[in-house]
Amino acid sequence: MHEASVGVTLLYIAAILIAAKLSSLVERFGQPAVLGEMLIGVVLGNLVLVGLPFFEPIKQSGVIKFLAELGVVILLFQVGLETNIRDMRKVGRSAFLVACVGVVLPMLLGAYVVGPLLLPDLSANAHLFLGATLTATSIGITARVFRDLGVLQTRAAQIVLGAAVIDDVLGLIILAVVSGIVTAGSVSGGDVLRITATALAFLVSAVVIGQVFAVQLGRLFARVSTGHGMKLTMALSICLISAYLAELVGLAQIVGAFAAGLVLEAVHFQPFENPRIVNDIHTATAQIEPQARVALDEVLDRYTERHIENLIEPISTIMAPIFFVLTGMNVSLTSLLDPQLLLTALGITVVALVSKIAAGFVAGNVNRWVVGWGMVPRGEVGLIFAATGLGLGVINQQIFSMMMVVIMLTTLLTPPILTVVVRRGGRDG
Amino acid sequence: MHEASVGVTLLYIAAILIAAKLSSLVERFGQPAVLGEMLIGVVLGNLVLVGLPFFEPIKQSGVIKFLAELGVVILLFQVGLETNIRDMRKVGRSAFLVACVGVVLPMLLGAYVVGPLLLPDLSANAHLFLGATLTATSIGITARVFRDLGVLQTRAAQIVLGAAVIDDVLGLIILAVVSGIVTAGSVSGGDVLRITATALAFLVSAVVIGQVFAVQLGRLFARVSTGHGMKLTMALSICLISAYLAELVGLAQIVGAFAAGLVLEAVHFQPFENPRIVNDIHTATAQIEPQARVALDEVLDRYTERHIENLIEPISTIMAPIFFVLTGMNVSLTSLLDPQLLLTALGITVVALVSKIAAGFVAGNVNRWVVGWGMVPRGEVGLIFAATGLGLGVINQQIFSMMMVVIMLTTLLTPPILTVVVRRGGRDG
Repeated sequence: MHEASVGVTLLYIAAILIAAKLSSLVERFGQPAVLGEMLIGVVLGNLVLVGLPFFEPIKQSGVIKFLAELGVVILLFQVGLETNIRDMRKVGRSAFLVACVGVVLPMLLGAYVVGPLLLPDLSANAHLFLGATLTATSIGITARVFRDLGVLQTRAAQIVLGAAVIDDVLGLIILAVVSGIVTAGSVSGGDVLRITATALAFLVSAVVIGQVFAVQLGRLFARVSTGHGMKLTMALSICLISAYLAELVGLAQIVGAFAAGLVLEAVHFQPFENPRIVNDIHTATAQIEPQARVALDEVLDRYTERHIENLIEPISTIMAPIFFVLTGMNVSLTSLLDPQLLLTALGITVVALVSKIAAGFVAGNVNRWVVGWGMVPRGEVGLIFAATGLGLGVINQQIFSMMMVVIMLTTLLTPPILTVVVRRGGRDG
Repeated sequence: MHEASVGVTLLYIAAILIAAKLSSLVERFGQPAVLGEMLIGVVLGNLVLVGLPFFEPIKQSGVIKFLAELGVVILLFQVGLETNIRDMRKVGRSAFLVACVGVVLPMLLGAYVVGPLLLPDLSANAHLFLGATLTATSIGITARVFRDLGVLQTRAAQIVLGAAVIDDVLGLIILAVVSGIVTAGSVSGGDVLRITATALAFLVSAVVIGQVFAVQLGRLFARVSTGHGMKLTMALSICLISAYLAELVGLAQIVGAFAAGLVLEAVHFQPFENPRIVNDIHTATAQIEPQARVALDEVLDRYTERHIENLIEPISTIMAPIFFVLTGMNVSLTSLLDPQLLLTALGITVVALVSKIAAGFVAGNVNRWVVGWGMVPRGEVGLIFAATGLGLGVINQQIFSMMMVVIMLTTLLTPPILTVVVRRGGRDG
């Protein structure tokens, strides 16, 4: 990759940030900010078609790509922080059911129905990869929509979050099995077991052991310094290490970041209370009535350093839009110009939508449409499947482009439609 | 550059952040945190000498290098925000004098005294580059020490900041002149005039026009959305664009970031007050006595979203240490093992120290030692000079290594000594 100078890269970041914020105009029309970010990304990324190539190098920049990944990692960490681990356990059964149906159905429909029907010239292995690509659930976009709409704490949202994590484990198994079938003609049961066990071990230890470890680490760090920044550094480091470990066992980094957020949600950062701010508040509020003091403490809790969420917020505000604008920029409008390819992609997209929406219907007593549509985006996880198929030579560049169109459509359709179904269902989803 | 995977890069960042925070143990011994960060960087960067190569790829990562640059850009933006433009104007004359002496003296001593004396085999052109390298002032380290010690608002600190900006312009002219003499044997007065005019035009327009533009842009953005993140995005974008423009006219990016901070310090972000927080506070403090309310408002002003400094703080907390740890990591202890090279480097370092400390003595009625030592670090600006000389073939790899040692020594010596002279001189410096 050709890398621009530091100054030019800083300019690119500024351009993305300004574009993202200008795009928040969509909020005026009741749409979540993330839709605006992706749409302005599509516009900027395709300006080259009308002879304006300024934004082209942004797509090629390894630094911007990394910042985008870091942005979605921090977003999912934040979502994890805002998610209560007990609430997640409560929806565990529903999430598991939704995840299973949301993997089995698109796999079967993709590999054995829509694949042979719409792409009869392809091999059975290619159909397998098509099915596998359709099983992916990319939680970044849905999580952002739920946050933008303020419904992250609803039961439906919790089910989608849980199902997406389980989906990532299932996807890992499927990728191993399908790759094994393609390369060796069969797959070793031991390998699949090992991959599954590693992924599950990571998730279980992240939640169980992680809780103990975070407290211990917190005490160690508090002994070094209780000063400013320690709390934020500690929390963010745990997030980054967890994202790394997730990648190490084959899961998506965002699953690791989400798990870290879940763990730290339960950790109380008492040793890090900033003594200066506490002292200043005590001085200022010396004359407050006890009743008002309780109310004031709540306000301060929410808006000052005491809560790790408030420290992550400015970082997430800056970083997350980079991911969504860049996602939009990578949507190539030219690939939509081939009518044959577009038509096939539309057919497969319908299957992609229907199979995930159907999964929502096993979610139990919640707004099932919210759950179903929440599972629709394939995003970068689907891309990994398609890219693996391309790398193994099972699918060619044209089929890869077609899958890109399917992934793009599921990604772009979800924010506006999910907004409608959330609003129609009411906030208690 | 070989780039590690996203997950591994996340792990590197976590390692740097944890190391930086553990190193804040030096604060127990009255030392600024930045010294700890650089020292732990030196340790981590040289662990390969005892057979532990884990940290070696960090030095090679383009992403980490960019994050470090971004970190020091955000730090200088923050320093600019905390600096009052009127106070800067007041010290303008002193800063100009200090900058001039701090450039002329090391240039003359380097090119015509210590160069011919200690390195008689080198050409006159090489001596010129040695002198030019010694003129540089790298403000990142000093600014961080002043911040860590809480003396950024003192007259001495303001003079150093102003002098460093002027030095960067003078350095630009010197680099053009010296490069011109080396490549063409002479230098065109028109070229020097053009370079100087562009740099000055940037600085003047950043401060004068920038002030108007920031307010206009603020109004435009406020019309799009007054929601969360607009204030932060706008401020940071202006910082990044200003850093880019500085690079464009040949100045250091940090000078652009500092100028942006200076400009925005004067901009009041009234349209962006978060209505939710204001409302919540009003509800909670309904029963407070008027006197306590004034005091409380001050506390809230300092710690809530209302002030742009509070939004930049968490970002700077995370980003700035990356720069200082990486700076330490790039200190190669093996280059100190050649006794001949080390001895020459020590001799030149003495000149480097003396010539900048002498500049402090024209600073007028302030703690002159603080001003002088504040000008000592050559850091990455000195590195640019030395690298240009290497690129033009004027100096060889060995002389470049020696200059690296001089730059390293000025960089590592400054934090502990500056701390001592600040403490001895009292806070009003």
